[in-house]
Amino acid sequence: MQKNDRAPRNREIERKFLVKQLPERLNRLRHYPIAQGYLAIESAGRRQVRLRKKGNSASLTFKVGRGGAREEREIKLSSKQFAALWPATAGRRLRKLRYEIPWNGLLIEIDIYQGNLSGLVVAEVEFPDQVSCWRFEPPLWFGREVTGEKRYSNVRLATE
Amino acid sequence: MQKNDRAPRNREIERKFLVKQLPERLNRLRHYPIAQGYLAIESAGRRQVRLRKKGNSASLTFKVGRGGAREEREIKLSSKQFAALWPATAGRRLRKLRYEIPWNGLLIEIDIYQGNLSGLVVAEVEFPDQVSCWRFEPPLWFGREVTGEKRYSNVRLATE
Repeated sequence: MQKNDRAPRNREIERKFLVKQLPERLNRLRHYPIAQGYLAIESAGRRQVRLRKKGNSASLTFKVGRGGAREEREIKLSSKQFAALWPATAGRRLRKLRYEIPWNGLLIEIDIYQGNLSGLVVAEVEFPDQVSCWRFEPPLWFGREVTGEKRYSNVRLATE
Repeated sequence: MQKNDRAPRNREIERKFLVKQLPERLNRLRHYPIAQGYLAIESAGRRQVRLRKKGNSASLTFKVGRGGAREEREIKLSSKQFAALWPATAGRRLRKLRYEIPWNGLLIEIDIYQGNLSGLVVAEVEFPDQVSCWRFEPPLWFGREVTGEKRYSNVRLATE
């Protein structure tokens, strides 16, 4: 691995929870649809290449590693680039509605899954460092923590 | 799989041979360096996502399937997009010099591998259809046919 692979900007520190009860007046918060699909998934080492359309913007993301911290590299795609690759994700896709909730200086992202996965609601929180990650106290409306649980990974949800 | 996944433009029909002897005056032909690396490789189904720099132009290619015909989708990348993803291919790269030889209305591509793979020379011919593929008679300076042989796939060459 090269030196700049360990740079903080390429690392995600996050925790994931099921959601017991949706907060009120959710529709007043920033929200947008997300469609994502996987071009390739390596089970060993958990490498993945994901395509995502978030509102009107498209991206390609490379991820590797597991658990609370992993390497991530993302590029924006033009609509044309996205359209050329998207058909290759058939059978490995999911759709969700994402709501963004500012919370104690952090951002909670609520994902309401759609289609086959309708009924599943997950909250994700990303942290600027390990300390704020450990110290995080989940709001009362959060349910069980599922950080690192394979069955709630988007790769699994998209392919099973 | 979607209907447009079977469209001819996404299919490659090609044969691959070792090269016994390089043609003369090779440097008078069009040639350029290629650097390529793999973001992800799925062994089952042979899915792969490849980054490539060919001369000054960069691309990302998705491939799936095996043998003489497989699905392929490619997009051009800007230098910035390429630079953001390239570090993720560390340890899964190869370099080669490619020469293009027009031959009986077809194009022979000769790849002279570099670095660890120095000494390996391979010729590839792509065909517009299956009939021209079957009918192809290799020139005398071609060696053994290695179409479909895993050990000569670029994925294997880049990772072993």
